[in-house]
Amino acid sequence: MTVPEDTIAAISTPSGSGGIAVLRVSGPSAIPIVDKLFRGKKRLSEAQSHKAYFGQIVDANRNGQANPRCGASRFLDEVIVTIFRAPNSYTREDVVEISCHGGQFLSSRILDLLVNHGARVAEPGEFSKRAFLNGRLDLSQAEAVADIIRAKSELNLRAALSQYEGVFSNRIKNLRQELVDTCSLLELELDFAEEDVEFAAKTEVETKIKGVIQNIEDLLSTFERGRILREGARLVIVGRPNVGKSSLMNALLKEERAIVTEVPGTTRDVLEEQLNINGVYFRVIDTAGVRTTKNRIEKEGVTRTLKQIQEADILLFLFDGSQPMKEQDISLVEQVFALRGQKDGSRKRMIAAINKIDLKRKLTNSDIQDLLGDCPTLEISAKEFVGFKELEDVLVGVSLGDSGYSQDEPLVTNLRQKVALEHATQSLHVALGSVKRGLSWEFVAIDLRGAANQLGEVIGAVTTEDILGNIFSKFCIGK
Amino acid sequence: MTVPEDTIAAISTPSGSGGIAVLRVSGPSAIPIVDKLFRGKKRLSEAQSHKAYFGQIVDANRNGQANPRCGASRFLDEVIVTIFRAPNSYTREDVVEISCHGGQFLSSRILDLLVNHGARVAEPGEFSKRAFLNGRLDLSQAEAVADIIRAKSELNLRAALSQYEGVFSNRIKNLRQELVDTCSLLELELDFAEEDVEFAAKTEVETKIKGVIQNIEDLLSTFERGRILREGARLVIVGRPNVGKSSLMNALLKEERAIVTEVPGTTRDVLEEQLNINGVYFRVIDTAGVRTTKNRIEKEGVTRTLKQIQEADILLFLFDGSQPMKEQDISLVEQVFALRGQKDGSRKRMIAAINKIDLKRKLTNSDIQDLLGDCPTLEISAKEFVGFKELEDVLVGVSLGDSGYSQDEPLVTNLRQKVALEHATQSLHVALGSVKRGLSWEFVAIDLRGAANQLGEVIGAVTTEDILGNIFSKFCIGK
Repeated sequence: MTVPEDTIAAISTPSGSGGIAVLRVSGPSAIPIVDKLFRGKKRLSEAQSHKAYFGQIVDANRNGQANPRCGASRFLDEVIVTIFRAPNSYTREDVVEISCHGGQFLSSRILDLLVNHGARVAEPGEFSKRAFLNGRLDLSQAEAVADIIRAKSELNLRAALSQYEGVFSNRIKNLRQELVDTCSLLELELDFAEEDVEFAAKTEVETKIKGVIQNIEDLLSTFERGRILREGARLVIVGRPNVGKSSLMNALLKEERAIVTEVPGTTRDVLEEQLNINGVYFRVIDTAGVRTTKNRIEKEGVTRTLKQIQEADILLFLFDGSQPMKEQDISLVEQVFALRGQKDGSRKRMIAAINKIDLKRKLTNSDIQDLLGDCPTLEISAKEFVGFKELEDVLVGVSLGDSGYSQDEPLVTNLRQKVALEHATQSLHVALGSVKRGLSWEFVAIDLRGAANQLGEVIGAVTTEDILGNIFSKFCIGK
Repeated sequence: MTVPEDTIAAISTPSGSGGIAVLRVSGPSAIPIVDKLFRGKKRLSEAQSHKAYFGQIVDANRNGQANPRCGASRFLDEVIVTIFRAPNSYTREDVVEISCHGGQFLSSRILDLLVNHGARVAEPGEFSKRAFLNGRLDLSQAEAVADIIRAKSELNLRAALSQYEGVFSNRIKNLRQELVDTCSLLELELDFAEEDVEFAAKTEVETKIKGVIQNIEDLLSTFERGRILREGARLVIVGRPNVGKSSLMNALLKEERAIVTEVPGTTRDVLEEQLNINGVYFRVIDTAGVRTTKNRIEKEGVTRTLKQIQEADILLFLFDGSQPMKEQDISLVEQVFALRGQKDGSRKRMIAAINKIDLKRKLTNSDIQDLLGDCPTLEISAKEFVGFKELEDVLVGVSLGDSGYSQDEPLVTNLRQKVALEHATQSLHVALGSVKRGLSWEFVAIDLRGAANQLGEVIGAVTTEDILGNIFSKFCIGK
């Protein structure tokens, strides 16, 4: 894939009104194009890199003259223009950033001018794509850029930053290097096949391949955590009517409201609330109530609730501690188990909470255990705000697993990476089988090369225009 | 009013996800505060003004050490930091701009860090307020900044830019100077009163005051145009059912859709569309139909329609040219006249359009004239897209008045300016009366000073904390 030679431009700040908007122009003509529009103390062609120049954007025609349509004054805005000369820029091309007053109409007007003077409107993610094509970022680092921008919680951000720093890429690169080295050894042996020199011992190769498989499987095991850090954990609260589901939800929100990030434009389902607990982002869904009904509209509601339960990352069963276990509690749990019980691991992410412990207790922990089996059981009072510290710790623990998350640990955070890693292990297992069956190194080498390529895909060392298109189209415009 | 000595910080780009977010820090501690968070090749204290430094924002505690809560890596983002040393900055204070990856959570995190290290979260418009207090902008120029950001059409933007450049301020300053000069002359005469020297001839003073009054009245007469440029012209389409109101609306939109600015977050009434015609911003309201009805819900609709008609800047009466004038056409017009006919000037902004001229004509222009009196009457076909160029020209002409708009012309664009100008003319009329009645110059001088002060209010030469609070609180955050 070659780097395109045209010059792209976009409004890189979010749309809407704000104090400042920034337009970014990247490519070989970035400086001459902006130069035609900019009136400052210096021509931009003579300007220093990494220096901010105050001046005006004027509506000039292609020869740099005022546009007669605009009458006497061609002045469009006071701006700060900063040049980043290649290769010291985000894209490693010449980049010009124009910081103007943050109006939607105004910044669109300036973008139009840039296009009139030869720039092309950038596609989503095209700046990052160029950064990748020019070797500034590898593919998983470029993906991390999008994750940084979308991050909604501390750990979400930290995981993206760690990927951006290359923690994950470096692990993949090392594994890939191991495979390439092993391959070279095998191919060397093939070259000297007739001379009966042994460069690679069978057991040694086996151990090597097993080691890489183990490493990749360790990485794959982080996917669920990576996904939860990235997309948030779906916490579904289940319980019969009047056990205090809404109070619990409100109590959780009340405690954490201060650190909930409000993302404008997020459509909010009435039933879904977003919150951050100790740096983990949760999407909390209050199920309106699962009950058998003949009413068509209510049935629709129940179907939706069941769907939520199936898609939940964590199920929180809520009980009323001031009441003995009721038939409705039991049938509800049975319904949920019927839906989820079969799935592997799905019972791991279950929590029980006994609410209303400020009242006289009529429900014991062992009642819960009898019903739900072995799962963390907490005693809380949503009304008196008791037990929430423990509840939150358990929620975070359950969503991240026992090992929690450390920023030095590489995480698989998206499906693309996961699929490529799975393909790599498949190839490695084939290679391992060939070794065991004593096939020629030739066959083993082919599959090891295959696995190395699949690891290369993860970091973009091996890639296609399709893969890139797919990745970068999910970016926001101007990045 | 003194300039506060604390340091303020804000996310200056619009909220939401984008490629870049910019945080702005302004005040005496701006550089040391950011210095504590920034790791680059240079300490910011030694950094040059107007130079962009690449580096990292780290989560450090107040002593500049890593925050243990974040584990091994304190890295928060890769950023570009640019310093603007006083007085060469937007606020004329030391300003630091941090350009980071455009994520809502990430940029809020960096803002938190800035606050932890001694910055205060800026109030809306506080940067511009400081720019004003430090003499970089006068008040009407500061107001223009907000208008530039809100601009929705070319002329809206041009009017704001012209105000920002000082076209309006300079006119006010000159008028104010004239009053001050005249005052000084009168006061000089008072000092020498006993010596019978005449510095100021009565007729000369009269002419002077009349001149200033005329000038202010000319300015005041631009208010309606200024308001329409700023807020858009409310164009209400009125006509009995089936004359083609929706087709007209669609045809207007079809032609102009490409240049309609979509402002995210704008709630769109189903009946209201926004469009730009030759640089003027219109809010087009299609009245669902005014008819007498007993149905309560429909009545509610009619009430709303009548309200729209009352608030319209331009009324467009639409007729079906393939049908003779009907009773319903006539009663509709009569209803509207009953609502608006009394108001001065309200009939000036009326247009008639005869639709469906592609069909056999059964309605003549003189039928329209008989009904509506003298008003621009156009012949169109929404279906065949005939007559729209003319219609658009008339719409722009009617909304801006005969004189149109030239960017060199000062416009009164907001109510605050208008009220202050009206107060000034009132004082001037009092002064004029005193001159005519031959009162002592002393009395005349008091009112002239009063008028000068009122003009001073317009540009903020004379102001109070209340006025400023009121103006800047309407700004967006980070400006």
